[in-house]
Amino acid sequence: MAGVGDELLFGHTVNTNGAWLGQELSTLGLEVARHLVVGDLREEIQEVVAAGLEVGEVVILTGGLGPTPDDLTRPSVADYLGFALHEDPNLVEELRRRFRARGFDDIPPNNRRMAQVPRGALVLPNPVGAAPGLGFPLPDGRIVILLPGIPAEMRGIFSEGVVPLLKGRFGPRLNPVYHRFVHTTGIPESLLARELESLLPGDLGQISVAYLPDMRGVRVRLTARGVLASEAEARFDAVEARLEGLLRPYRYRAEGGDLAQAVGEALKARGATLATAESCTGGLIAKRITDQPGSSDYFLGGVVAYSDAVKVRHLGVSEEILRGEGAVSRSVAEAMALGVAERFGSTAGIGVTGVAGPGGGSEEKPVGTVWYAISLDGKAFVRTERFLGGREMVRERAAQAAMALLLALLEGRQP
Amino acid sequence: MAGVGDELLFGHTVNTNGAWLGQELSTLGLEVARHLVVGDLREEIQEVVAAGLEVGEVVILTGGLGPTPDDLTRPSVADYLGFALHEDPNLVEELRRRFRARGFDDIPPNNRRMAQVPRGALVLPNPVGAAPGLGFPLPDGRIVILLPGIPAEMRGIFSEGVVPLLKGRFGPRLNPVYHRFVHTTGIPESLLARELESLLPGDLGQISVAYLPDMRGVRVRLTARGVLASEAEARFDAVEARLEGLLRPYRYRAEGGDLAQAVGEALKARGATLATAESCTGGLIAKRITDQPGSSDYFLGGVVAYSDAVKVRHLGVSEEILRGEGAVSRSVAEAMALGVAERFGSTAGIGVTGVAGPGGGSEEKPVGTVWYAISLDGKAFVRTERFLGGREMVRERAAQAAMALLLALLEGRQP
Repeated sequence: MAGVGDELLFGHTVNTNGAWLGQELSTLGLEVARHLVVGDLREEIQEVVAAGLEVGEVVILTGGLGPTPDDLTRPSVADYLGFALHEDPNLVEELRRRFRARGFDDIPPNNRRMAQVPRGALVLPNPVGAAPGLGFPLPDGRIVILLPGIPAEMRGIFSEGVVPLLKGRFGPRLNPVYHRFVHTTGIPESLLARELESLLPGDLGQISVAYLPDMRGVRVRLTARGVLASEAEARFDAVEARLEGLLRPYRYRAEGGDLAQAVGEALKARGATLATAESCTGGLIAKRITDQPGSSDYFLGGVVAYSDAVKVRHLGVSEEILRGEGAVSRSVAEAMALGVAERFGSTAGIGVTGVAGPGGGSEEKPVGTVWYAISLDGKAFVRTERFLGGREMVRERAAQAAMALLLALLEGRQP
Repeated sequence: MAGVGDELLFGHTVNTNGAWLGQELSTLGLEVARHLVVGDLREEIQEVVAAGLEVGEVVILTGGLGPTPDDLTRPSVADYLGFALHEDPNLVEELRRRFRARGFDDIPPNNRRMAQVPRGALVLPNPVGAAPGLGFPLPDGRIVILLPGIPAEMRGIFSEGVVPLLKGRFGPRLNPVYHRFVHTTGIPESLLARELESLLPGDLGQISVAYLPDMRGVRVRLTARGVLASEAEARFDAVEARLEGLLRPYRYRAEGGDLAQAVGEALKARGATLATAESCTGGLIAKRITDQPGSSDYFLGGVVAYSDAVKVRHLGVSEEILRGEGAVSRSVAEAMALGVAERFGSTAGIGVTGVAGPGGGSEEKPVGTVWYAISLDGKAFVRTERFLGGREMVRERAAQAAMALLLALLEGRQP
């Protein structure tokens, strides 16, 4: 597959479409041979189609179907593959309808080119936007597919139009790849890999293991190919069972991969509620908790206590403690967690205070020093860590560590 | 350049390295011809090197230099280019030092391969991690460069090792591309493009224009090539001057591109302070404000008022209004903004309440309905919008719209 656009080549836009399509195509059972990115140049786009057709039977290009003059994918590919463009009257009507709904008299001239389709090509309706996807079937069975670059439009057309198309053409030859993700947080990749591999036999029965670390933790990906779905699941279960003891302190379960989702499920399971008191994380924990749909069932709210005055007035942290131990201290984290739970009337409270940097560090409390506390049913649990990395990493890691502690307490995995 | 890794091909990791390298290389003056992504297979990696050397003089591969068995880039490339690997005693010492510092007795066997370097290759020190970058100079002047896939390590080696190397080899032939970004928010891409192009003459004096939309707004990218830096700047200034009237209501200035940065600068310039009261955005605005280093100079804190009880008790919203108009209403947004500013003692307050979805919508207040308010020096300004898109998009757009209104008020661009 290939992304078309100078913004991708220059790096001003990250190619998230490539990642998304990679997942969808391998889940569908097509082997993805290459991702490519090229600029908005006719020759480059044509070269990429040629290169794609050399290694694959399906070539998908995203981007360059829009109304602006740098959108060259449609005519470049049509010319190269020998398809003549003509204006599709249905698409013209559809465009007119869309633009009128937005208050235009008629289709702006630039936008009209979005109704151009190649004769003999497949038009894949766009459930979200104006530009349809296009399929160019070749006489030898290969196919070139063009999709818009805007992720929501690309995804909509892919799911509704491309998936059925590819299933129809390649059905019996599709060879799905199965993945299972085990989400961990709080253990470094190298340690996890070493421990994990010492527990697994050399031959995992066609299961391969990969480690995908990010700021928040390490995802362990188990992969099975060439088997039925049920067999893949059975093998994943066997591997997970063998790793149970190792993974237990670090693993969380969340379909979307976000620890905040696991925290939400654990709160719901107990009928518990949560409030947050954040200093250095500045609202990040509340934001992550409320990223989850339905979080109003268990999240009452929080205080972002950036200044000391807010800590005193809105969380009940004592001025004496602030003066004596400083804002970044065990007692302040504890008072924040207890204070917010009490004032908001929640079962659980999170309190986080630290030095996110780049400024504000001292010899005693260097940048990255964070105190975090959980209050649960009126009892407080406090931890400190020094997180490495820049401001964003310190904040992300602090939020993650605080939520991981809350989850462990909710699940009875900690004292 | 190419990213190596099944996690990229499968789409389990987004190729942010490609975007970053694209920016750095074009700023340096190298024309980036292609980005590619391949899996962890010897033949695939070698094919990509071959393909890269066909279109470019510099081929950069990222990823696959780590300690795990799926890290195949180093031997695959060395074999393909005819370089023999040997163990570099200095790197072994360095690895040993690193692992001892982390409590290991010696280098774990898997990790020892990170000390393997090709004879005759350039070793590019890693300022952040264990695996160095490697440069394979070819007799005809072309060069293949391998960098680790972990972004911080890749970036460190690139900046400290690769940039000087490429300047040394290609110095006189480098042809930097200059960009200027104009950040806008609150105007749709198609409208912006139409208005903007009607103001600009057909020939922009070698300036090209591109539109990079995302959830938060549209960046307009001006690009100049083949000129000196000073000339590029002069041309950008001329284009911007011509667009001044169009852009004024939508533009903000922020080096990092984040509206929160512009808001921070505007608050600092007035000696003003800010507090936030968030319902549907759930801490996102506070998080974005505190993403900015130094935000404690102007940000006092905020309340995430997810439940109605918190709105009443911690922001002073009246129960009567909540009952009468509902939580998503003009009066509640206004009371939240005024209430938080008063209680936190800040110059400015933001209040946001809305239906982020997917649940909670009604016929009268469908998903995406948001009321947001700014209080400034005790006076409130309220707006409503219905944002399209899913939960994340509604939240992002609501946060952006509220900050844009605050900025406009601080800059005197609104009543």
